[in-house]
Amino acid sequence: MTGVSRRGLFAALGSGAVAGGLVAAGVATADRSGASAAASSGSGSARVVPFHGEHQAGVATDVQANLHFAAFDVTATSRDELVSLLQDWTAAAVALTAGREVGDGGASGGAPLAPPSDTGEAVDLHANRLTLTVGAGPSLFDDRFGLAAARPAALVDIPAFPADALVPERSDGDLCVQACADDPQVAVHAIRTLTRLAAGRAAVRWAQLGYGRAATVDPSAPTPRNLFGFKDGTANPAASDTATLDAQVWVQQGDDDAAGGAGAWMAGGSYLVARRIRMHIETWDRTSLQEQEQVIGRTKAAGAPLGHAGEHDAFDPRSLPASSHVRLAHPETNGGAQMLRRGYNFTDGTDGLGHLDAGLFFLAYQRDPRTAFIPVQTALARQDALSEYLEHTGSGVWAVFPGVPDGGYLGQQLLST
Amino acid sequence: MTGVSRRGLFAALGSGAVAGGLVAAGVATADRSGASAAASSGSGSARVVPFHGEHQAGVATDVQANLHFAAFDVTATSRDELVSLLQDWTAAAVALTAGREVGDGGASGGAPLAPPSDTGEAVDLHANRLTLTVGAGPSLFDDRFGLAAARPAALVDIPAFPADALVPERSDGDLCVQACADDPQVAVHAIRTLTRLAAGRAAVRWAQLGYGRAATVDPSAPTPRNLFGFKDGTANPAASDTATLDAQVWVQQGDDDAAGGAGAWMAGGSYLVARRIRMHIETWDRTSLQEQEQVIGRTKAAGAPLGHAGEHDAFDPRSLPASSHVRLAHPETNGGAQMLRRGYNFTDGTDGLGHLDAGLFFLAYQRDPRTAFIPVQTALARQDALSEYLEHTGSGVWAVFPGVPDGGYLGQQLLST
Repeated sequence: MTGVSRRGLFAALGSGAVAGGLVAAGVATADRSGASAAASSGSGSARVVPFHGEHQAGVATDVQANLHFAAFDVTATSRDELVSLLQDWTAAAVALTAGREVGDGGASGGAPLAPPSDTGEAVDLHANRLTLTVGAGPSLFDDRFGLAAARPAALVDIPAFPADALVPERSDGDLCVQACADDPQVAVHAIRTLTRLAAGRAAVRWAQLGYGRAATVDPSAPTPRNLFGFKDGTANPAASDTATLDAQVWVQQGDDDAAGGAGAWMAGGSYLVARRIRMHIETWDRTSLQEQEQVIGRTKAAGAPLGHAGEHDAFDPRSLPASSHVRLAHPETNGGAQMLRRGYNFTDGTDGLGHLDAGLFFLAYQRDPRTAFIPVQTALARQDALSEYLEHTGSGVWAVFPGVPDGGYLGQQLLST
Repeated sequence: MTGVSRRGLFAALGSGAVAGGLVAAGVATADRSGASAAASSGSGSARVVPFHGEHQAGVATDVQANLHFAAFDVTATSRDELVSLLQDWTAAAVALTAGREVGDGGASGGAPLAPPSDTGEAVDLHANRLTLTVGAGPSLFDDRFGLAAARPAALVDIPAFPADALVPERSDGDLCVQACADDPQVAVHAIRTLTRLAAGRAAVRWAQLGYGRAATVDPSAPTPRNLFGFKDGTANPAASDTATLDAQVWVQQGDDDAAGGAGAWMAGGSYLVARRIRMHIETWDRTSLQEQEQVIGRTKAAGAPLGHAGEHDAFDPRSLPASSHVRLAHPETNGGAQMLRRGYNFTDGTDGLGHLDAGLFFLAYQRDPRTAFIPVQTALARQDALSEYLEHTGSGVWAVFPGVPDGGYLGQQLLST
């Protein structure tokens, strides 16, 4: 399953692309565009986020426009089966993130009497900056796979917070896969493909579609806005700020030693907390502008901290209202703790009461939830004026594996312990 | 509510844009991009689809990348209230499709003690080719508003088909609004805004998010594919083919005379049939390539009619398998009837059984459902080999109003009868 498919290679050769160069380069740039490869390979290549590396892609990667997130229950009954699943996912992720179909037969080649190896709905599309980011939830460390001793101390169960309205069918999961891309069909195709490959070894527990990071599609657009109409993500660490990422997002060598080193395999990984936050937009929409801005702590139009003019002006969080969201979530209010947020807006039809079921699918990466998400959310749940307008309906935490070296597989650091 | 908001004007003046020119031109091109208007007004203007015209936009308009569709139950108790609702929607649609905020206060101006007139999440975004297309369902022609005598004969109730699995909470509605845009947040914002304006007069009955027309985002991409991996829409009439649109899509003067002229007000309108079609992708994915191609009647890779090489090759539908989808849906098999399809793929989480709840939200515009959707679907439901993999879970039909002239309002042709 690794390498380029025969059809993919054939298409590249037949299209008049610079075949010699592609082959010399290991065909790393061949993409699903098939016959149009020659015309679009430049932009196609530019849309590929490398899969291999010290860290998994999809964390510090510039946020893509679309999300399909899935949590899986592992049904495999042995550690070998779990390893083979993660190996198959790795091979598929290598192909998909490079913009290729999975398998030898593609959607159209191979034996006519066998199902196509690729489901085909992303044929003709490019990689579209697809990233696939995989992690293990606390439940994977039970007694099924002999992993209990390798559970990192930082992979704690998320405590219950006041006003939580969590639905089990939207929470937790042995494994998670975050698929992000600039085309929703590419992200959905990736999750579907991994789901299909998992047959008999893992099944989708729940899934969530998200959208809304139009800023990355249109580089001239400013910070994206959430469904309350406010800019969201202003204070996020930049992908280029490696010092902050090392301090706040990536697990470091030596972390977790206090727990006897159970989580030593996580160096280079990160902890992901996901929360499906239903936003009561109808109530919010009836609130005055002044109240909205006091609740958030920033102006609505510019996104400036209250009392300031510009979105990125330096400010003292203690100058903001005591119950404002920005003050309570600010690193200075939380012992310096910071998370890398890459949440997406969602709109899932209606709630049957004439209201849109819409909100924020919050995704935050951090070095240790015990010093980041948990204390921050504890403070927010107690004091945040915004909580009145929110309802947390889903939740999960995962140890997102370190990056995959060439020839390695997702989770190998854990499963070879 | 018409015209540019004070804040919009203020932002344009303050941004260093060519304010004199904007004012001289009636500020018609001011968009939500606010401070970045100077840099992006060119592309912003290019992304505006005109609202006024002989026909509503969003039917023959080149298909946008994203859909938010909503059906409404009207709760107004008088015809005057219904008219005022449609007038308010018209004023909002004029602003939204031009890329402007709604209301005098925008998201940030106006009285601080009043709620913002615009919810704000589409501030900074452009019009993104937003179209809003509005229609009336059969239930609007009951005895509430005195419209029974104006119900067009062509606005028939869709009959039940074998294997229908319709859910009332995903079906029907007094009014429908189809919002299409190249940014999902713009489409969602539009539906939310109309919902908010409707408070006390109409409430959302159901809503559906759709995606997948990446071809229009990337003009070099070919015909979009559905979630079965096949090209979908090859034989659709082109927006430029006005003869076919007049013959097949737009209601003509003199149509419906046989019914005593009840539907004469519909000239320039069209009939929309929507079907939420759940696709059993897991079953499909286990089907051989040969079987898939026999079921569809086209090759998977190229989308060519079986026995031909190219997607757009001329073919005799009788040369395809008798139960193939393309043969059964072909105009020549259906007395020449043709529909303008602009469906979207959807993925709505999971079904609780480990399967993605995904499929096609089918939207088809036609001059008369009695000679188009109904006979075609009757044949498909009886014979189509594809039906085995499909489940229709929602349905609706609406008389999509004729276009709105300058100064008019949506549905005026009906409500002034």
